[in-house]
Amino acid sequence: MIDLMIPFADNKSAPYYEQIYCFIKREIQEGRIGAGEKLPSTRQLAEKLSVSRSTTQLAYDQLVAEGYLETRPCRGYYAAEVESLLAMPERGTEEMASAPEENRGKQDGNGLLDFSPRGIDLGHFPFSVWRKLSRETLQAGNREFFASGLPRGEQRLRQAICDYLQASRGIHCRPEQVVVGAGSEYLLMLLWQVTGKRRIAMENPTYRQASRVLQGLGHDIVPVAMDRSGMRADLLARSGADMAYIMPSHQFPTGAVMSVSRRREILNWSAEAPGRYLIEDDYDSEFRYRGRPIPALCGSDYTGRVIYLGTFSKAVAPAIRVSYMVLPEELNRRYDEVCGFYASTVSRVDQEILARFLEEGYFERHLNRMRGIYRNKHEALLEALEPLRKDFRISGEMAGLHLLLESRRGEREETLIARAAEAGVRVYGLSAYFLEPAESHTVILGYANLEEEEIRRGVQTLREAWKGKNPT
Amino acid sequence: MIDLMIPFADNKSAPYYEQIYCFIKREIQEGRIGAGEKLPSTRQLAEKLSVSRSTTQLAYDQLVAEGYLETRPCRGYYAAEVESLLAMPERGTEEMASAPEENRGKQDGNGLLDFSPRGIDLGHFPFSVWRKLSRETLQAGNREFFASGLPRGEQRLRQAICDYLQASRGIHCRPEQVVVGAGSEYLLMLLWQVTGKRRIAMENPTYRQASRVLQGLGHDIVPVAMDRSGMRADLLARSGADMAYIMPSHQFPTGAVMSVSRRREILNWSAEAPGRYLIEDDYDSEFRYRGRPIPALCGSDYTGRVIYLGTFSKAVAPAIRVSYMVLPEELNRRYDEVCGFYASTVSRVDQEILARFLEEGYFERHLNRMRGIYRNKHEALLEALEPLRKDFRISGEMAGLHLLLESRRGEREETLIARAAEAGVRVYGLSAYFLEPAESHTVILGYANLEEEEIRRGVQTLREAWKGKNPT
Repeated sequence: MIDLMIPFADNKSAPYYEQIYCFIKREIQEGRIGAGEKLPSTRQLAEKLSVSRSTTQLAYDQLVAEGYLETRPCRGYYAAEVESLLAMPERGTEEMASAPEENRGKQDGNGLLDFSPRGIDLGHFPFSVWRKLSRETLQAGNREFFASGLPRGEQRLRQAICDYLQASRGIHCRPEQVVVGAGSEYLLMLLWQVTGKRRIAMENPTYRQASRVLQGLGHDIVPVAMDRSGMRADLLARSGADMAYIMPSHQFPTGAVMSVSRRREILNWSAEAPGRYLIEDDYDSEFRYRGRPIPALCGSDYTGRVIYLGTFSKAVAPAIRVSYMVLPEELNRRYDEVCGFYASTVSRVDQEILARFLEEGYFERHLNRMRGIYRNKHEALLEALEPLRKDFRISGEMAGLHLLLESRRGEREETLIARAAEAGVRVYGLSAYFLEPAESHTVILGYANLEEEEIRRGVQTLREAWKGKNPT
Repeated sequence: MIDLMIPFADNKSAPYYEQIYCFIKREIQEGRIGAGEKLPSTRQLAEKLSVSRSTTQLAYDQLVAEGYLETRPCRGYYAAEVESLLAMPERGTEEMASAPEENRGKQDGNGLLDFSPRGIDLGHFPFSVWRKLSRETLQAGNREFFASGLPRGEQRLRQAICDYLQASRGIHCRPEQVVVGAGSEYLLMLLWQVTGKRRIAMENPTYRQASRVLQGLGHDIVPVAMDRSGMRADLLARSGADMAYIMPSHQFPTGAVMSVSRRREILNWSAEAPGRYLIEDDYDSEFRYRGRPIPALCGSDYTGRVIYLGTFSKAVAPAIRVSYMVLPEELNRRYDEVCGFYASTVSRVDQEILARFLEEGYFERHLNRMRGIYRNKHEALLEALEPLRKDFRISGEMAGLHLLLESRRGEREETLIARAAEAGVRVYGLSAYFLEPAESHTVILGYANLEEEEIRRGVQTLREAWKGKNPT
C-alpha cells in the first residue's frame, strides 16, 4: 500500500480535505501513483495526518466522484486509470456535472487559471436579501410552510414566474401551465412520463447534460447539424424525429441565435404531424450585452407545440435548485393525468423565498447588476483577445458567459489545450459538446468566475503559449 | 354562467380564498352547481367579491387540483362531475397526494372532524431551532452553499444519515452508498434508471402513491396478499416478480410487522435468482410505542439485495423534501454509471441545516418528543375505542399514526364512512389502498393531527353514528 505523506500548507490557504484531494490527484495524474495501486483507508490516512476521518473521507469522495479513485467493495480505494494530463481538461468539462467547481475559486485542481464555461460569479449574490427573506419566511406563524404544498409548486411562485416570463421573455402563460421542480433534469423525467419515449433531435454540438438525461430516460437522440441560423430545418425534417430540443435564444455552446425565419420553419415542422413537440431550453437568455433581448420561441408559438424550460440556477445561484416548465395545453392536461400525483420536489420555504425575490424586484435588480458585471468581463475578454484575431475566429459574443476561439491555422483543440495547460491556463475543447466523436479546432473560454485582471493575465499567457508554433 | 355571491364570514375565521374554495366545493357536492356548468372567470369573481384576483385564482386552483372544477383551454372553468358526498372520503384519501391537507387544521373541506391517516402534528416542530440553523447557515462567508454541490448529496449529510441508520435502525452503510434526493418519488425515478423496467411485487393493500409512481415509470405491478407475518413468501415465489416493494417494520396501511422467519424467506427469495432486489420502504419506523423498535430488514441483509428507502417527511416535516436511499454494492456501482451525472435535487442550504439537525442531536430530541406526543394520542384513541371493541376488530396498534377498525357485523366501509360523515366525522376506507377493487369492512382512523380531546369527542360521535344500526 502507498505511503502518503501530504505536506499541508502552513497558512491553511485551503481546507485540509482540499489539500489532500489536490495532492492525491496530482500524484495520480503525474503517474507517481500508478493505476491499480491501493491507497490507505480513510481511517489510516486520517490517523497518519492527524486529521478527522471525515476530512479524508471527503477528499476520497471527491476523487471517486471525479474518477481518480475507484472503490472495490470490502477492499478499499484504488487509483484509477487516467489519461495523461493533456487529456484532462475536456474530460473534466462535462463529466464533473456538479462537482464543487465554483468552490475552488479561480484555479482548477491543478492550480491552472480556469476559464471554465460552467462558472458563475457568486461574489455578487445578494446574500443579505436572501437571508432577510429566509428569516421572514421562517418567522413563527408561518408553519404552513412545513406542511405539504401544491404538487405543481406554490401558486404564488408560479404566478411570479408567469409575470416574469411575460415581462422579460414575451411569453403569456397561466400559473396552471407551470410546473416547478428541483432542476431541469427532474423536469425532463416528468416530461418523459407525459410524452413517452421519443426520437429527439438535438442541435450538434449541444448541452451534453441534457442529452445524457434524455438518453438515460430511453429516448433516442438524433444529432442535427446547425448553421448560423440555428438547427437546420431541412435536416430536422429528414431526421425522423418527433421532438426537438433546442436553445433558440442562445445556443449552448455555440452562442448561435436562431433566426426568425428558422424559428418559423421549426415551428411549422412541429405542427406538420400530430404529437410533435419542441423543448425550448432557455437556460441563460438573461445575459445579453448588446442589442435587444432575444425573445423566447415560446412567445411566438402559434402551434401549441412548445414546451418551455427555464431555470434559476444560472441567474440566481446553482444551489437554488428551482427550475420550471411551461406546458402547452394538450400536454398540460396529460400531465395532470399521469404526473398530477407527484408532490413538489422544492421545499415550500425555498419557493416562498424565491417568489418574494421575484415579486419584490430583487431578481430584476440582481439580473441588471450581474448583466453589468458580466458585460465588463465580456468586454475585457474581447479586448484582450484582439491581437489573437489574426489566428483565431472568435464567436459566441454578445451574450452568455463564454466565447469560442476557432484556430485559423487548423491547430487541433488538444494541442491548444495542452499548450495552455503547460503555461498555467485551463481552457476547454468544443469536441466534448458533440453528440458524436468530432475533430475540433475550437476552444471555449468561460469568464464568469474570473476577475477582469485575471482575464487579461490569462489571455496574455494564452497568447504566448499559442504564439508562433507550427500547426499540428 | 353562474352567479356566485359568497357570504364571507365577518370574523375572517379563514382566509378569503379558503372561504371561496369551501363555498364552491359545497355547492358542487350538494348539486346546486351542476356538472358542466360554467363558472365566472377568476377576474369576474374577484371584481364581484372585491378581492384580489390571486385570491380567486388560488381557490380555483385548489378546486381544479381536487377535481371539483375542470379547465377548458381559452374557455374557462366548469364544474366537474363528482360523485355524491358519500363517496368523497375515499376519493380524497389518496388522490389528493400533496394537497395542503395539514393547512386546513382539524377539519376537512366540509367541516368534518378529520381522522386523516396522512396528518402530521406540526404544532411541535422545533421552529426556533430550524430558524437558528438556517440563520447560521446563511451567515456571510458561507457562500459555498450557493455553488453546486456533490451529485449524491453533501458528504456531511450522507455521513449523518449513516450514523443515524447505524444507531437507530441497525444498518451499517457508508456515505458512498447513500443518495439524497427531493422525495422518495424522485428516488424511485432514479432507481428505475438503475434497475430498468421490472415486475414488482407489492403488498396488498399498500402505499398507493408508490404503486402509482412505479406504474408511471413503466414497471409491472403484481399484488401479493399478506398474512399476519407480512407479504406471503409462497405467493411471492409464484408471482413471477423480480423485485418486491415491502414495508417490513410497519406495513402501510395494515400496520403488520414482518416476522423474522418471513424476513428470511423473503431475503432468500431475493437471493435465489440473479438480479432480484427488495425495496424496503422504512417510512415511519420512528414511531413505535410499545416494545423494542423493529429493526430494518436492510440491517440483516446477507444477500446484498436490499435497497433501503428512508425519508424525513414524516419524522421532521412534509415540506422538508429530503429522502434518501441506500444502495447495495452492485446497484451502487451501476448507479454511478447511469445516474452519476444527475445533480442533487436538494438545495445545499437545506442539506446543511438537516445535517446539523441530525448531528447536533435535535433530530433525536424531536423524535423522542413526538413519540411521546403521538403515544398519548394513540392511547387516548385506543381507550376511547374500548366500547367499540365488541363491534369492531381493532388493529395496527403499537406503532404509526393510524388504527384500523374492521366491522365484526359485516358493515361495509362505505356505510361506516357515510354515517360518520353525517354525524360530522371523516374516516377513511381501507379499499382505497388495495391494488385491485376490493370489498372492505374496514375504516382507518389517523390521529396525528388531532388533539386528545378531539380524538375522544370524535370517537364518541362515531359510537353514536354507528350504534345499533342493522348491517347493510
